[in-house]
Amino acid sequence: MAGGRGERFWPLSTELIPKPFIPLLGPKSLIQRTVERLLPLIPPERILISIGEAHLQIAATQLPQIPERNFIIEPVGRDTAACLGYCALHIEGREPDGIMLAIPADHFVGDEVAYRSVLEKGLVALPGATGVVFGIHPTRPETGYGYIQVAGAVRGLEALPVLRFVEKPSADRAAQYLASGDYFWNSGIFLWANRTLLELIRLHMPEMDRGLAALRPFLGQRGRQSELHGAFAALPRISIDFGVMEKTSGLRLVPAAFAWDDIGNWGALERALPADTDGNVACGEHTSVESSGCITYSDAGPITTFGACNLIVVQANGQVLVCDKSRAADLKRLLACVKPTS
Amino acid sequence: MAGGRGERFWPLSTELIPKPFIPLLGPKSLIQRTVERLLPLIPPERILISIGEAHLQIAATQLPQIPERNFIIEPVGRDTAACLGYCALHIEGREPDGIMLAIPADHFVGDEVAYRSVLEKGLVALPGATGVVFGIHPTRPETGYGYIQVAGAVRGLEALPVLRFVEKPSADRAAQYLASGDYFWNSGIFLWANRTLLELIRLHMPEMDRGLAALRPFLGQRGRQSELHGAFAALPRISIDFGVMEKTSGLRLVPAAFAWDDIGNWGALERALPADTDGNVACGEHTSVESSGCITYSDAGPITTFGACNLIVVQANGQVLVCDKSRAADLKRLLACVKPTS
Repeated sequence: MAGGRGERFWPLSTELIPKPFIPLLGPKSLIQRTVERLLPLIPPERILISIGEAHLQIAATQLPQIPERNFIIEPVGRDTAACLGYCALHIEGREPDGIMLAIPADHFVGDEVAYRSVLEKGLVALPGATGVVFGIHPTRPETGYGYIQVAGAVRGLEALPVLRFVEKPSADRAAQYLASGDYFWNSGIFLWANRTLLELIRLHMPEMDRGLAALRPFLGQRGRQSELHGAFAALPRISIDFGVMEKTSGLRLVPAAFAWDDIGNWGALERALPADTDGNVACGEHTSVESSGCITYSDAGPITTFGACNLIVVQANGQVLVCDKSRAADLKRLLACVKPTS
Repeated sequence: MAGGRGERFWPLSTELIPKPFIPLLGPKSLIQRTVERLLPLIPPERILISIGEAHLQIAATQLPQIPERNFIIEPVGRDTAACLGYCALHIEGREPDGIMLAIPADHFVGDEVAYRSVLEKGLVALPGATGVVFGIHPTRPETGYGYIQVAGAVRGLEALPVLRFVEKPSADRAAQYLASGDYFWNSGIFLWANRTLLELIRLHMPEMDRGLAALRPFLGQRGRQSELHGAFAALPRISIDFGVMEKTSGLRLVPAAFAWDDIGNWGALERALPADTDGNVACGEHTSVESSGCITYSDAGPITTFGACNLIVVQANGQVLVCDKSRAADLKRLLACVKPTS
């Protein structure tokens, strides 16, 4: 799934080059890192990339190992339920008995070996379950993530029965979740039989099911773009979590303990990049003098900070942003006040 | 006097284009503003510009109204005593009975009419005095300026006898000076008969006097650059304040009440530019969202601040600087840690 815009990464992310395609954590883009992380487990011809229409060219350039027919183009962004439902239609046509592993393209993973091992445990845990979700052991009372509550262990399986999905909590609740040990961060990575996903959509989202049925005639066809666009735009805009997962019983959770982040805003960089002794992290050239806790990113010349504390400083696309670190999650609010760059 | 580098304006000021030649307060450079401020009082053929050798071209470009022969080139920077002594040699050759008004090229003046009126009062006060200095009524306990202490008024003159020059004071002393009413900021603007300045140098700076004598044979000559350079480099490196003014009796001070600043570092911009309602000042495009007390300068794309307080943000010459406002005066210290830009 690489359809997100990543507005909280302004001025770096733009409509032209949204978050998955920017080299946010080093020379490679987030989607390049995600695909390379999966390749030892999944051959490229079995990796589908769901993207917006405008990003086919950059996706194909960044991911030369992925066959052209594996780029699934969402005619318009309609959140993850529509995205995954549409992907399920494609898989249904190619491999009706296939298993789908749904992975956001823009996450940080600290330990790739552990990551692949966890995904393999998911495959082991799938038989007998409706689906498998991957939960990250919380390491802080994070209020920016959804949580998943689990019950006790299933005998002989490294997977836990899912009790319920929980939306982004208050700080108090997040602290309770962290202390209880029964709650995991929802990584947004899901595993299920492709057929099961389509059944769950039929069961819990009849409107989406009808919408997807209307899309079937267009699959693999060229030249009916405006009809396809119209039919896709009619799909309900809802996440797979709200639309399907929260209503589904029989899910299992595979716990994961590796460092993970959904790279939701500039603040995430200090969890995903190595810090200097003053707690500054940098992507691009940065000279820090008597500065601490700063996050800097430059796609152009060097950034120098002097006596600066807990700031985000970004030079990208000809713009400079200086933002108090505590405002990182509010950046969308800022965008209403500044001119678009793309 | 336009020989200063202005290192505290890094990364904007460089060896190539030092402070007087940069458009720090608007579209015109500081030296352009200074010359235009003087033109109603002094015709261009009587304005001499003392500059470093490397800056003749930019000076001539920025000041087309100044005749070429009026650019006095300092072969090497040797502080203000050598600069003014060398200018005095040139004036001696052209107009031995002339009066010299010595003006730094890089100051901010808030009221040009009041400024010219004060300079004219200086001319009135000069007869009977060794020289005239121009003192600014202090408006805050500034520790970054030198002060001049005066005695009571001279009958019939809007000028006050100078008691003594005081170096940059401690915060406590600066507060005392502000409260006393007897102390003025030393504007660095001086007025004297050219002949008197040369006599004062002979009296108080015999080494400088000998050095200037060695320079006389080169005046108006071309083709003896290396000898001139060597002789100039042998001049003592000292300010006119230390070398002459502090030792001179019979000086008078003309008080000035207009807004004035020596534009010593980025912090000066908030005294010289209009602020928005949150106390932010900007040169170049700036969008401020929930930010206050920030100073921004851009010679390139826009700068956006979000939740930022009391910061200096500069985008210039391909570099970005973010500096706590309290560190503005310390910027030279930073330069040891960053690569030169010019």
